[in-house]
Amino acid sequence: MIDPVILKGFRDSLPKDEIPKKKIMRKLEDVFSSYGFVPIDTPVLEYTEVLLGKGGGETDKQIFRFSDNGGRDVAMRFDLTVPFARFMASHHDEVGVPFKRYHISKVWRGENPQKGRYREFIQCDFDIVGADNAISDTEILSMMHKSFQSLGIERYTFHISHRGMFSAYLEKEGLSEKAVDILRTVDKLRKIGSDETKRLLVEITGSEEKADGILAFITAGKDSGFMETVEKLEALSGGRNESSERMREIYTLLSSLGIEKSFVFDSSITRGLDYYTGIVYETFLDDLPSIGSVCSGGRYNDLASLYMKEKLPGVGSSIGLDRLLAALEELKSPLLAETASADLLIIPVKRNESKALEKAEEMRRKGIRAEVYLVPDAKMKKIYSYAETNRIPYMLTFTDTGCEIKNLSTREMMSEEEALLKLGADA
Amino acid sequence: MIDPVILKGFRDSLPKDEIPKKKIMRKLEDVFSSYGFVPIDTPVLEYTEVLLGKGGGETDKQIFRFSDNGGRDVAMRFDLTVPFARFMASHHDEVGVPFKRYHISKVWRGENPQKGRYREFIQCDFDIVGADNAISDTEILSMMHKSFQSLGIERYTFHISHRGMFSAYLEKEGLSEKAVDILRTVDKLRKIGSDETKRLLVEITGSEEKADGILAFITAGKDSGFMETVEKLEALSGGRNESSERMREIYTLLSSLGIEKSFVFDSSITRGLDYYTGIVYETFLDDLPSIGSVCSGGRYNDLASLYMKEKLPGVGSSIGLDRLLAALEELKSPLLAETASADLLIIPVKRNESKALEKAEEMRRKGIRAEVYLVPDAKMKKIYSYAETNRIPYMLTFTDTGCEIKNLSTREMMSEEEALLKLGADA
Repeated sequence: MIDPVILKGFRDSLPKDEIPKKKIMRKLEDVFSSYGFVPIDTPVLEYTEVLLGKGGGETDKQIFRFSDNGGRDVAMRFDLTVPFARFMASHHDEVGVPFKRYHISKVWRGENPQKGRYREFIQCDFDIVGADNAISDTEILSMMHKSFQSLGIERYTFHISHRGMFSAYLEKEGLSEKAVDILRTVDKLRKIGSDETKRLLVEITGSEEKADGILAFITAGKDSGFMETVEKLEALSGGRNESSERMREIYTLLSSLGIEKSFVFDSSITRGLDYYTGIVYETFLDDLPSIGSVCSGGRYNDLASLYMKEKLPGVGSSIGLDRLLAALEELKSPLLAETASADLLIIPVKRNESKALEKAEEMRRKGIRAEVYLVPDAKMKKIYSYAETNRIPYMLTFTDTGCEIKNLSTREMMSEEEALLKLGADA
Repeated sequence: MIDPVILKGFRDSLPKDEIPKKKIMRKLEDVFSSYGFVPIDTPVLEYTEVLLGKGGGETDKQIFRFSDNGGRDVAMRFDLTVPFARFMASHHDEVGVPFKRYHISKVWRGENPQKGRYREFIQCDFDIVGADNAISDTEILSMMHKSFQSLGIERYTFHISHRGMFSAYLEKEGLSEKAVDILRTVDKLRKIGSDETKRLLVEITGSEEKADGILAFITAGKDSGFMETVEKLEALSGGRNESSERMREIYTLLSSLGIEKSFVFDSSITRGLDYYTGIVYETFLDDLPSIGSVCSGGRYNDLASLYMKEKLPGVGSSIGLDRLLAALEELKSPLLAETASADLLIIPVKRNESKALEKAEEMRRKGIRAEVYLVPDAKMKKIYSYAETNRIPYMLTFTDTGCEIKNLSTREMMSEEEALLKLGADA
């Protein structure tokens, strides 16, 4: 006998988790399609060199990497961005630009497992490449907004900022050369607090004044509205600039869509990676800020520079689906409660099983998810326990003259007609 | 610059392939849910020992296997059956029986790539475990029938047979001990033809008469109806037996559902694996028999014997989704033609982009997939080429007084109202 154990950091998804997960993915896909985004898929395994590029970062240690039977150095993808960049380099002539794709799929990282962190998890990425303008930025933000709405989440806030505006400030302060270190430090503000952030900034800039200035810049949006913050930051950076004009345009477009209230300008958002060049954003659930950002991203000016010469500017987001699911669970989302295997359980009569099969077919034609209890002549206790385990709300039994249906939570009996009404059968 | 090359036997899925693939998976999932089947998922990586058991088979050479960073001997799953068996051993108390699951996901095998065969491919499995009776067998067969219907495939035939009936015959002939070899040989009949099959059977049984007898048994259904074949086989095996009674019951149930015409009794179907103990079946497309079976499976009497003592009888099927997709392509299925990124392309006006974004939102509220062309002020030639690449049927442009819509294939202009009707907008 082999112990049916699974690997550390991995897990099974049982129906009670998998049913809502699939529902959520469908809702997101429906939103994405309604915006004209199209799905792609890429191999789980790629050449390590293709995935890691020159490598040397944190990712290298976390990657699942091995020699395949043909001696090739291969690895499992650790995100969906790198495969997308490789994909665009391979297919950009065929798919054309602008290209708007989404990709919902598993990725693998050998991190040390901790609460809510797994070595196998699902990413949901969506990007627009081949366009660099306010309308594209806005389309991504609007789609994020619509995505959270579609999941029935009511209270969320997008924290947005612009790398270029920060760069303009750093340039004015003569700090451009230290930009990468400063960005990485500022990115940790939420985690390490302002005292520690200041200490680090003094270390980097060598000046308490400069550190205070940066802190003032990144907290400028704290108590002011979006446009007011833009103006404050412009004042701190020596006036309007290309990046702040872009933010003004985006805000105008968001307002015309009537969704501007979900966005706050938060200049402490920098998204550590060098990769971003324009807007950057994170998404927090108002009732669960502690779990951190559930949807993040930004604008970059060159997606696939590792693989092709042509520049591909873009803007994109990534939803950590497992983190979002954990959040929905804490928020007691009704979405996660809809886990019934079927609407109706039909109990067959021994030696006359065809009746149950036919009735189930009749119900399915009416749009009802009907399931036949597959053990004819079972004890009622077993049947009830089955219905409970599978959270099936209604049960149909045959009588001498026809059938009757029981609401399993209220124990109320009803006719087929009444039950069909309650179950919202198709006409 | 790194060459954006992918591994031999792997491939990208472009929108034109991924859109229909997702549509097909949804249709199948909808059918499965309507029967009360529930989805599960399992890790892509597992301990090699768990996946291979005692090992030693063909699978061992084909598996993607390696040492992870913690020195564990791990492998990527090569099918969805073994992980399901392990899953049931881990969770059978929690999920209860009967348990009806489906699982649509990727698996990996390092086979030598050939036409239509890849190292990464999608399986779609569905099983009922914890019940051994005609009603469960019928439910699986009925669901297979419904699945093909849902994909708009009209002409398909399920070839079904029963391992127990063959065993009864072999027992009567004193050939029980050679059953495994005989089953494997018979399984190849379709591939190698009856002369070569006979030659091999003579070799195994050491008797031309026995070989002829087996050949007569496995071709008994050739020109006769389902029940007639059952009777013939019973006569060859010394009368009715438990297995033939089960086939009679199943046929009666299929008939009561009115779907019996899609099933032929074909006793040459054995499904090589020792694993099966009851009905076994394969599915052929009448207009494309050459691609082989697109959905196969059968009944087994013990799913998880490697991992648990309790016996778990079951019945299940597996659809090779990639093979099915290839078939649908050859059959010119309309499903594969629905690959438009959106219903409507909206062309923004430079310096007044909010109009396009608002219009798109209005359209989406009406259930129309509306996409904004994200390059304001682009040349019409570029826009047309974009619409063509993305197979978008309608285009909206703003005029001084409102907007107009063009059918891009007929070049016909129409009002918004007319277009909404054509696009089937929600009221």
